[in-house]
Amino acid sequence: MKDHEKLKSRRCPIRVGILGGGQLARMLALAAHPLGIQPWVLSLSSDDPAAQVTSYWRRGDPNNKRDLSSFLDQVDYATFESEFLNATLLSEVNSKVGVVIHPSPSIMGALQDRLTQKQILINNHIPTLSFRTISTFSEAKDVLDEFGGSYILKKRRFGYDGYGTYPIHSHKDLNKILDEIKKNRDGFIAEKKIIFKRELAIIMVRNESGTIRQLPLVQTFQHHSRCLWVKGPINISEKMKLILIRIKKLLNQLNYCGVIAFELFESHNEIFVNEIAPRVHNSGHYSIEALSCNQFQYHIKALINHPLPKCTSLSRGFSMYNLLGESCFAPKLTGLTEGFMHWYGKKENRQGRKMGHITILDKTTHRAFLKAMRQRGKINL
Amino acid sequence: MKDHEKLKSRRCPIRVGILGGGQLARMLALAAHPLGIQPWVLSLSSDDPAAQVTSYWRRGDPNNKRDLSSFLDQVDYATFESEFLNATLLSEVNSKVGVVIHPSPSIMGALQDRLTQKQILINNHIPTLSFRTISTFSEAKDVLDEFGGSYILKKRRFGYDGYGTYPIHSHKDLNKILDEIKKNRDGFIAEKKIIFKRELAIIMVRNESGTIRQLPLVQTFQHHSRCLWVKGPINISEKMKLILIRIKKLLNQLNYCGVIAFELFESHNEIFVNEIAPRVHNSGHYSIEALSCNQFQYHIKALINHPLPKCTSLSRGFSMYNLLGESCFAPKLTGLTEGFMHWYGKKENRQGRKMGHITILDKTTHRAFLKAMRQRGKINL
Repeated sequence: MKDHEKLKSRRCPIRVGILGGGQLARMLALAAHPLGIQPWVLSLSSDDPAAQVTSYWRRGDPNNKRDLSSFLDQVDYATFESEFLNATLLSEVNSKVGVVIHPSPSIMGALQDRLTQKQILINNHIPTLSFRTISTFSEAKDVLDEFGGSYILKKRRFGYDGYGTYPIHSHKDLNKILDEIKKNRDGFIAEKKIIFKRELAIIMVRNESGTIRQLPLVQTFQHHSRCLWVKGPINISEKMKLILIRIKKLLNQLNYCGVIAFELFESHNEIFVNEIAPRVHNSGHYSIEALSCNQFQYHIKALINHPLPKCTSLSRGFSMYNLLGESCFAPKLTGLTEGFMHWYGKKENRQGRKMGHITILDKTTHRAFLKAMRQRGKINL
Repeated sequence: MKDHEKLKSRRCPIRVGILGGGQLARMLALAAHPLGIQPWVLSLSSDDPAAQVTSYWRRGDPNNKRDLSSFLDQVDYATFESEFLNATLLSEVNSKVGVVIHPSPSIMGALQDRLTQKQILINNHIPTLSFRTISTFSEAKDVLDEFGGSYILKKRRFGYDGYGTYPIHSHKDLNKILDEIKKNRDGFIAEKKIIFKRELAIIMVRNESGTIRQLPLVQTFQHHSRCLWVKGPINISEKMKLILIRIKKLLNQLNYCGVIAFELFESHNEIFVNEIAPRVHNSGHYSIEALSCNQFQYHIKALINHPLPKCTSLSRGFSMYNLLGESCFAPKLTGLTEGFMHWYGKKENRQGRKMGHITILDKTTHRAFLKAMRQRGKINL
């Protein structure tokens, strides 16, 4: 054991480093404090949502070698709020510092690429939509003909909340993004379109000891490719059960540690995994109030290999509504008369930006959803 | 409107100043963040519990004129975590700064003195234990004879958690604290002892618009004069209902704003108010998980005259167990397998010091209590 490792092993309280300073980092930090764990945050600006809620914020770029190295040197464990970090750099820097990082940089690297993500799903017999790899414009045209004239074109890396995702319905649509396709070095995948009934999501958490906890299945709704609301719990069908078994196998096989979110499409008689996010996720924000342990505390507990408490619901129904920015005016928060407010403290309000969310608990999923919608209507953004 | 007031009225987000940096200030700050309200903290050390959970901490002494003045100048509203501040100084400094402070310094001043607190109770026909004012040692002896050989001697000011409270059973007991009595300029009250069945507590909150919300009645248990556990909800008797009506009248008459806690003794057939605390209170920590709005968010909402949401229970039973320090070793937090941990991040663990608390929700008050006790046993402090 190196000297600094010995020093760290004696250190108390535990210091958890969070790479990034957005709302997910903020809610991770707010969840760490009551556990007696110091949340250290590395981000670019002291105005960042997570920078405001801890005295252990450090200015820096999680993709900069020097910043990363000096930050990791000050913490015992590290995690991230976005899987789009430079996985190679993170791995390389940490080989000298020796901090426990979960999910591991190699898993982050594999899942940040839509192609390797798809391959992992296929190798583990988890149903996912048909796709083709696209590197050139001519491939894009060929696959459009093969897929019957439409598909969703997705950048292999750095796409989220609709960024880097292009619904294609004609060769004309393709021509419009000709430059995009030529410029992008990482390449794309083209995914077959299906008609789906609804979108679902489920969160799992696993620690190094191999305990897995499964959070309730939820329905999600996207507006302009961005999550608008979530409601749950949703009954788990026989088909879904099979998928969950395979997901758990996958997590064990990867020795995955931390929270992981699966977004799903449910069609008339099939379920497909659409995306995997190796981190805390918008579809799990309801858990702050609705569960006996929320996704943020689960993630931290898994990161430090703390026992994972059983997941029980505190409410028979819940719903979460995102507060997406509509103007540059700061909102009045006096509108909400029921439920739980979560404002992220972002400096600027922009059209469609995730500024906060509200959560409602009620006797049924449907009642919670209706109430959340009404409360959402009372808040001027 | 003065210039700085205009500036402040435009400021967004709202800045709430908290005087003091202990666990109550910490939980107030943690409750402010999700509301999008910036919690500014004034305390002596950057190691203080509240200093760690916000980037808006300022070093200073809430009883120092200069520190107080420059701190209040930076915030829009202010409150405190302890009623034992210098009320005159606070009032004087604020007459120049013009911040909204709740509870008002004059109410704080009246309630920090056990004699004026008693007078307020008596004037409002709220039952409280018989007492006598004690200024001299000979008065102390005379009242001992009058009260049949025993009473509780309490310093008029700055007593809490058993500090400044002396159970007296004989003239010998009195002689032991002769010096204490002679030294103390504020004087004492001697309170008649009663045999009580149990101790109760109830929290109310009122905003400037006059809305009052009542939190569930709870039972509390003190060990060595310090709160050990709380359980609830407790049924409200007819006698209690009358007291609650009078308490609400009192709050309206005082134009009280913020959370206020009442500690009560229940004897075989009577209920007495023992103490009033004009602030968030240990007996209300359960509310973080058990209620639709917790005492800390209620306090902040009342402070800024935000509408107070209705108070509904999210659980049929709840219990809170304080984690009192037992040694100077930092605790392992891995013991807790159920319930909610709240660690305060204090630098030093001392015998009997409030280091954190745990909360359990369950189907009944009794089940929650048993579970909380078992979980408490799993944590080594």
